[in-house]
Amino acid sequence: MVKLVLIRHGESTANKNNEYTGWTDVPLTKSGIKQAHVAGKLLADANIDFTMVHTSMLKRAIVTANIILDETRQNWLPIQKSWRLNERHYGALRGLNKSDTRKVYGAEQVALWRRSFSAVPPLLDHAEYDRRYAINGIMQEPLGESLKMAYNRLIPYWIDQVAPRLLDNQNQLIVAHGSTLRALIKYLENISDDGIDGVEVENGQPIVYQFDSQLKILTKEIWGS
Amino acid sequence: MVKLVLIRHGESTANKNNEYTGWTDVPLTKSGIKQAHVAGKLLADANIDFTMVHTSMLKRAIVTANIILDETRQNWLPIQKSWRLNERHYGALRGLNKSDTRKVYGAEQVALWRRSFSAVPPLLDHAEYDRRYAINGIMQEPLGESLKMAYNRLIPYWIDQVAPRLLDNQNQLIVAHGSTLRALIKYLENISDDGIDGVEVENGQPIVYQFDSQLKILTKEIWGS
Repeated sequence: MVKLVLIRHGESTANKNNEYTGWTDVPLTKSGIKQAHVAGKLLADANIDFTMVHTSMLKRAIVTANIILDETRQNWLPIQKSWRLNERHYGALRGLNKSDTRKVYGAEQVALWRRSFSAVPPLLDHAEYDRRYAINGIMQEPLGESLKMAYNRLIPYWIDQVAPRLLDNQNQLIVAHGSTLRALIKYLENISDDGIDGVEVENGQPIVYQFDSQLKILTKEIWGS
Repeated sequence: MVKLVLIRHGESTANKNNEYTGWTDVPLTKSGIKQAHVAGKLLADANIDFTMVHTSMLKRAIVTANIILDETRQNWLPIQKSWRLNERHYGALRGLNKSDTRKVYGAEQVALWRRSFSAVPPLLDHAEYDRRYAINGIMQEPLGESLKMAYNRLIPYWIDQVAPRLLDNQNQLIVAHGSTLRALIKYLENISDDGIDGVEVENGQPIVYQFDSQLKILTKEIWGS
């Protein structure tokens, strides 16, 4: 039975400071690096042989993926880094403390931005030029995204890059972000727009799906929780 | 002017123990990790923007490349890992201490194996199955290679994957191994079979070429030496 493993990056400096991050390229904390090693050891113990690792263009996910590859002695695996796996873009909220935004905008509005499927955060005025996106087929960053907008740019990656390999019986590893993994889980488990509100993804805990040959979910486990 | 940077991985445990390594997948030493950080800082100070990183399927090169990408804040760059950039396969010499082989085979024979372009080391009886090569288009490891044999499987990678990007004015980074970098330098600088004997590549020292639009070498510098 083919396996898909989803892992949210280890704790980042922004997680630690309780800040909105989105596409800002923050590093892991020491604790986040440790979480990545622990996740890697769990996968190493399970002896799962992957054929590809998929991650975002943000270093907190890439560094987590590299640590996991090292722990599983699969450093040699091809690694694809795609902006489609990037965290949801938090627009003008990025860099702000989550508690502070509640004081400014009110708890209800903030809850809507964080948890509603289609609420769009306050947008940036303009996107700064970032070479990583310019040379990879999108000319500039989004100005802000709802979870739905992130979902819509994520699912084509699943369809083109991940699902065909699973259908070919190749285990796949995705190391990504809280919101993009929630979006993917919504898609995989056919969760409603309202239902996704209750789904949380913790840093560094492998979520392991087993599928049948038609990509029907047979089992789902969360390891290390 | 487009730039090509070649870097040999940082010191490995086998370098430290003065052993033949080849395709054995040994880790970096602490000193090797430090060399990778130093090389990354040199490239960061030079502000060279790459579009792709090329490395082997061996972790001493991959980990060195990842450290360099982190130091240059280009973690997001696509990284291609190819067996064609692997170290020369040292056949039955792998894992042996270089001084010990001199005692067994004589200094002259060992010098020939190490430095002659076409001398083939004692071959392995058989290659062990290694999944990384099985799923990447070669069914088993070579049983041993002369520098010429390594050269012959390396140059197609240069022609297909590196040269076209340089001709498109995209700076390229190759993180590889002593013998494969000597082979590439032989090709780039049109060095004779005898002449390559004198070329050494040190761990972690960036070799920086600048080319004109026809890939004629304009300058070559070795940094940190």
